[in-house]
Amino acid sequence: MVVIGDEILSGKVAEANLGVLAQALRSLGIRLRRVVVVADEVDAIAGEVRELAPTNDWLFTSGGIGPTHDDVTVEAVAKAFGVGVVSSPEMEAMLRAHYRELCTEGHLRMALVPEGSALEVTREIAWPTIRLKNTWLLPGIPEVFRMKLAVVAGVIAREGPASDAFVSRAVYTKIDEGVLRPALDRIVAQFPDVAIGSYPKWLDPSYKTKLTFDGRDPARVTAARDAFLELLPEGEPQRME
Amino acid sequence: MVVIGDEILSGKVAEANLGVLAQALRSLGIRLRRVVVVADEVDAIAGEVRELAPTNDWLFTSGGIGPTHDDVTVEAVAKAFGVGVVSSPEMEAMLRAHYRELCTEGHLRMALVPEGSALEVTREIAWPTIRLKNTWLLPGIPEVFRMKLAVVAGVIAREGPASDAFVSRAVYTKIDEGVLRPALDRIVAQFPDVAIGSYPKWLDPSYKTKLTFDGRDPARVTAARDAFLELLPEGEPQRME
Repeated sequence: MVVIGDEILSGKVAEANLGVLAQALRSLGIRLRRVVVVADEVDAIAGEVRELAPTNDWLFTSGGIGPTHDDVTVEAVAKAFGVGVVSSPEMEAMLRAHYRELCTEGHLRMALVPEGSALEVTREIAWPTIRLKNTWLLPGIPEVFRMKLAVVAGVIAREGPASDAFVSRAVYTKIDEGVLRPALDRIVAQFPDVAIGSYPKWLDPSYKTKLTFDGRDPARVTAARDAFLELLPEGEPQRME
Repeated sequence: MVVIGDEILSGKVAEANLGVLAQALRSLGIRLRRVVVVADEVDAIAGEVRELAPTNDWLFTSGGIGPTHDDVTVEAVAKAFGVGVVSSPEMEAMLRAHYRELCTEGHLRMALVPEGSALEVTREIAWPTIRLKNTWLLPGIPEVFRMKLAVVAGVIAREGPASDAFVSRAVYTKIDEGVLRPALDRIVAQFPDVAIGSYPKWLDPSYKTKLTFDGRDPARVTAARDAFLELLPEGEPQRME
């Protein structure tokens, strides 16, 4: 994921799309590997896209696709793929129909897309979502970003790659991380195919450490969790999920 | 900034330190240029640190500094700088004093630091904050991350580089971005030293577009804002900040 926005790097606006995308991808069985937040600069964005698009199944940009001077994502993605920027006749017609006699050159800028883009629509979301090969250009406005994920999910379900969904289990204990370490190390060594996380909680009376067990094979995830439970002393865990 | 954490990339935990760091740096007159979120993997973290530490005044990592197997930031930063990992006698003594007879090897792992690290303390925060040259190793837990920023601010104020603080002005209008574009383009061309942002608001009856004017010279920022105001029609703006 490439998040574009001076407003995020300056602390004026809180980033709100990362967590939403992470959860949506996870429910599709896709692992989010890397997120980069960069400024509204064509070369900075193009550099990231050039690095990430060829090395990942999918790439998602967030932000920078409006009509003003600081919206440079279309130009940057086109540059990264070595294609031009063209006006989509279809989007231009929609803009003219919507704004009628009030339609300006500024509005029509929203019809610009990287050459060769697919314009993805669904019955509910008629305004196209721009996709150039494996790279999605999503809007930064959180409410719109969320809506567009339905379009993304539809295409990914159709085009793959197909993956098993992730399964996740959690265990909460009052034992602190330093004490848990030997037990955890044993389970980590025994279950290399299960991702095991340990998260201390600050100032929570109900538990001290949350352990998570994640993988694509439910039987292995449960087995790792159960093997860990057997190493806990009596009275533990506090709860499980 | 390098944010470390499988839990963020999987959507299990919301990232909460980016905005706080962005605002703290901004108040120190420092521009946050780039944020990367990576998994709990030594080579992924080391690669980012190796790229970002030499090309920025300061680098901040968030997360991965506890005692368990998924805490690999100390090892990764040491690797990036080509130094070893050593136990800090000072931190080891504090851990032994705190945990006494309950102190485990796991706990003592928290005394490990990249060789050559400065251990920054303040009167209020006795547990050292690890800094290797220009790279700060900050904890991922949001409450603790926030506390540590006071230590960071003290050192940066002392060591610099000294910079003028940023000044920011904002204008709210009911005019949409597409219509504003020609006026904005003129101001952008006229004030290359002022960063001008345009942010559409979704579903807010009080305004449609927020314009921001940012820079280090208050006179120029205000002049850019005023030049823009002169291009607005009567009845605008809705409000200013």
